[in-house]
Amino acid sequence: MRLQSLNTPAALIDVERMNHNIERMQQRLNALGVSFRPHVKTTKCEQVVRAQMDAGARGITVSTLKEAEQFFASGIRDIVYAVGMAPTKLSQALALRRQGCALKIVADSVPCAEAIVAFGREHEEAFEVWIEIDVDGHRSGIAPDDDLLLTVASTLSTGGMRLGGVIAHAGSSYDYDTHDELVRIAEQERSGCVRAAERLRAAGLQCDVVSIGSTPTALAAEHLEGVTEVRAGVYVMFDLVMHNVGINDISEIALSVLTTVIGHQSEKGWAIVDAGWMAMSRDRGTQRQKHDFGYGLVCLENGEVLGEYVMTGANQEHGIISRPGRPDHEIAKRFPIGTRLRILPNHACATGAQHPAYQAVGPDGTVETWPRFYGW
Amino acid sequence: MRLQSLNTPAALIDVERMNHNIERMQQRLNALGVSFRPHVKTTKCEQVVRAQMDAGARGITVSTLKEAEQFFASGIRDIVYAVGMAPTKLSQALALRRQGCALKIVADSVPCAEAIVAFGREHEEAFEVWIEIDVDGHRSGIAPDDDLLLTVASTLSTGGMRLGGVIAHAGSSYDYDTHDELVRIAEQERSGCVRAAERLRAAGLQCDVVSIGSTPTALAAEHLEGVTEVRAGVYVMFDLVMHNVGINDISEIALSVLTTVIGHQSEKGWAIVDAGWMAMSRDRGTQRQKHDFGYGLVCLENGEVLGEYVMTGANQEHGIISRPGRPDHEIAKRFPIGTRLRILPNHACATGAQHPAYQAVGPDGTVETWPRFYGW
Repeated sequence: MRLQSLNTPAALIDVERMNHNIERMQQRLNALGVSFRPHVKTTKCEQVVRAQMDAGARGITVSTLKEAEQFFASGIRDIVYAVGMAPTKLSQALALRRQGCALKIVADSVPCAEAIVAFGREHEEAFEVWIEIDVDGHRSGIAPDDDLLLTVASTLSTGGMRLGGVIAHAGSSYDYDTHDELVRIAEQERSGCVRAAERLRAAGLQCDVVSIGSTPTALAAEHLEGVTEVRAGVYVMFDLVMHNVGINDISEIALSVLTTVIGHQSEKGWAIVDAGWMAMSRDRGTQRQKHDFGYGLVCLENGEVLGEYVMTGANQEHGIISRPGRPDHEIAKRFPIGTRLRILPNHACATGAQHPAYQAVGPDGTVETWPRFYGW
Repeated sequence: MRLQSLNTPAALIDVERMNHNIERMQQRLNALGVSFRPHVKTTKCEQVVRAQMDAGARGITVSTLKEAEQFFASGIRDIVYAVGMAPTKLSQALALRRQGCALKIVADSVPCAEAIVAFGREHEEAFEVWIEIDVDGHRSGIAPDDDLLLTVASTLSTGGMRLGGVIAHAGSSYDYDTHDELVRIAEQERSGCVRAAERLRAAGLQCDVVSIGSTPTALAAEHLEGVTEVRAGVYVMFDLVMHNVGINDISEIALSVLTTVIGHQSEKGWAIVDAGWMAMSRDRGTQRQKHDFGYGLVCLENGEVLGEYVMTGANQEHGIISRPGRPDHEIAKRFPIGTRLRILPNHACATGAQHPAYQAVGPDGTVETWPRFYGW
């Protein structure tokens, strides 16, 4: 199949850019001397994850147990489910482990640890549990210096579970946009998680793994002393939010949505396209950043960026393309009906999730369909 | 299956509320003396659409040709594809018509009309085309008094296509929140579309159908003289955006997302749940309305609304539940780990789209799985 014969809207992966992004991250983490465990929530796509593994990744991170099930079925054994364990999901986790999956689960509270211990004992399963560390107040986890850390660890350890390590995610790194700030938050993520591990070890508790990561901190960290592995997801595609954070060029964004012009409102300078929020997602992540790209940045079908045109509005299956601040009343001539455009997304994880498959475009213009899954 | 045994997150439909909403709209349009053609883009679910048809709907509206294909396969023949026709999609439309689907397509420009005529002639198919009318500057369409209307109609008619009617959607009705404003925009939608039909007829052109509609205008219109049918989609579920517009009570919202509490940050008054934006969508439609519900309004598992708690933040598979303006430091006691909550969504179309299936909860607490599809 060729790009020109694809139905629209379609989620395109530029395979060359994707491979470049995979290499960039893997080489960086090799240089920093840590293992890499990509977060597969970004693509939920076997072909992409295989490329990440082939490049040197060891194990994967998942955001749902369905991802764990699907990727275990495709041959990946070393999986961490990086969302705090809901007690009702323990039977699903047990089933995976009984099939031979080296699944690790996460806890950050005594009630959660107690539920894991109770279920594990009942089923004679020593779950491997990682304790979630809060390094930036972003979301979940236990602060490194909080004594709760030792209580949760003791609960798990004395309950017969295997204390595998500590895991942190500096999600607030997305809020910065200078190199110095990213270096600082990366160091905060590293030092906080390492400190938590050291406190556990000092208390005689086991803590082999020190797992940290977000795409911005992975690319900004100056050293990773004490860290054993890094996790990152969106780097494989990059996007406009990450561009505003300052870690990728526009030319590194590997995901775009192919769309067709279906109408115009010339007085307003609008072209209407057949990709709306269903194809782009409702993610407006660049809204509060230094450059607001609306629902996405417009490129020609061949990928050439048209710097000034963005998707300024989106309904379910309609997108509005315009030139903010300088309406283009000749837009019907510039982009006649039937013109095909590519839209670079704000957030690759959210945009990908709207599509049953990616269309992987090779350097020679041939296209392969790479399925992705969804749901829980 | 029972509600209590569902995995989370899950998209729940309260079947009683859904049936109430279907009855409410159908009875209103019966009273106004017009046909009803529901927009199935909201649910893409056979069981929901069957309930709409059983209650009296005649034909359906779709936002993608995939919806047309799926619902034609399930036995519905009378379908309007309410998005401006992309020339490259004409072969897909032709295939549907050749199979016996009474598919109508939409045009609002000369180039589009010309493309339809050229393709129709080439394949000896007299496509039924409706002309899109712009009644409020919201998106697409031709203004009722614009002479382009007659040019497009003549192009189609002399080209051998069947001029079926005019179609308008007052999408700006979502921007209002008082009864008087909704009545006004409903009348603007009605009168604009009827005027366009009259102009066509006065020019000797055929125009049997006058199709208008949005959920707010359908429920606010005082009369629909000259209109032959109304379209509406989100009314079947309702949501928080529509509640802010003023057309449904919270107690009429039929869609919610079932979620489980997986952690807390008590100092901040947060409970962390296993439904993030992947389960809720990134739709923040209430952000610019009179009441901002964050990513959704929190209810107990049984559906009882907890007025003050909303989902204030969302990552991919994490939601943050809190009480805006008055942090609840006892939240870990109020919603212990494992507590199940329901979240009412901002926008039912966007939230539904994130789920492979609905879980339809009957009045007796039994649950049926109703699949939904996605993609193009």
